[in-house]
Amino acid sequence: MTSPWLDEQQQQTWRTWLAVAELLPRVLDAQLQRDAGLTHAAYVVLAMLSEAPDRRRRMSELARMANQSQSRLSHTVARLEDRGWVRREKAADDGRGNVCVLTDDGWDVVARVAPGHVAAVREGFFAAMTTEQAAALQGALTAVLDGLEPDRTQR
Amino acid sequence: MTSPWLDEQQQQTWRTWLAVAELLPRVLDAQLQRDAGLTHAAYVVLAMLSEAPDRRRRMSELARMANQSQSRLSHTVARLEDRGWVRREKAADDGRGNVCVLTDDGWDVVARVAPGHVAAVREGFFAAMTTEQAAALQGALTAVLDGLEPDRTQR
Repeated sequence: MTSPWLDEQQQQTWRTWLAVAELLPRVLDAQLQRDAGLTHAAYVVLAMLSEAPDRRRRMSELARMANQSQSRLSHTVARLEDRGWVRREKAADDGRGNVCVLTDDGWDVVARVAPGHVAAVREGFFAAMTTEQAAALQGALTAVLDGLEPDRTQR
Repeated sequence: MTSPWLDEQQQQTWRTWLAVAELLPRVLDAQLQRDAGLTHAAYVVLAMLSEAPDRRRRMSELARMANQSQSRLSHTVARLEDRGWVRREKAADDGRGNVCVLTDDGWDVVARVAPGHVAAVREGFFAAMTTEQAAALQGALTAVLDGLEPDRTQR
């Protein structure tokens, strides 16, 4: 019979996971707040739009890519819209669903903030690891993600 | 000169990290909400107290162990206190600072909820990995954590 508890090694791994998952976003949020008054969740939305053809994506696609629920994304997008960085439109092709569009001002924000954000990710995350460790981490996390959301493989 | 951007491999690793860091807590929160109306942050506080001598810890120590800011911990503890699961006391030894104590009812909650929570952690996280992958993950995350909070090594 399997013990219901984690073994000592797993417990240590889990606590390390929890600490990094809590502390790293705080570091990234602080940098984004300082540089642009942005939360990390809001930055991710802008960045995903900046990479899209015509700088626009369906709200449903954006929610999936940003790992946000539809309701949380709506909230994030509403606040970005208030600042003039995105706007919502009806989808042109079939009239169903909404599309989120990055404005020129929003594009400028991404262009201005991205280098500092990427530097923070490199410094806070990748700089600590060897290339081999990063690859091993990627392997382990991909396996976890496949278990959480089997449909996401091949992305 | 180093490129300011992440290379393709790093970008994929980073996106996988973001997805797991967003989706896994949602799975764990859902289980804890269903079983006890608890957030994961609140559960961690109860669990850390349940492992302490006399089921009590200083608030400052608890904040560090639960990776929560003092203000966020105060909020979490206030809500647990409302439910009768913890109580706050002045530290007995020197009168400075507050101590958080797990009540008998709080102990019962941990005892009731922990098996389901641990099962969710095993299923959502460790079941997806080989032992070697878990060890590699631990190595990479420990390096990240050391960079974020050098004082935490040796824990």
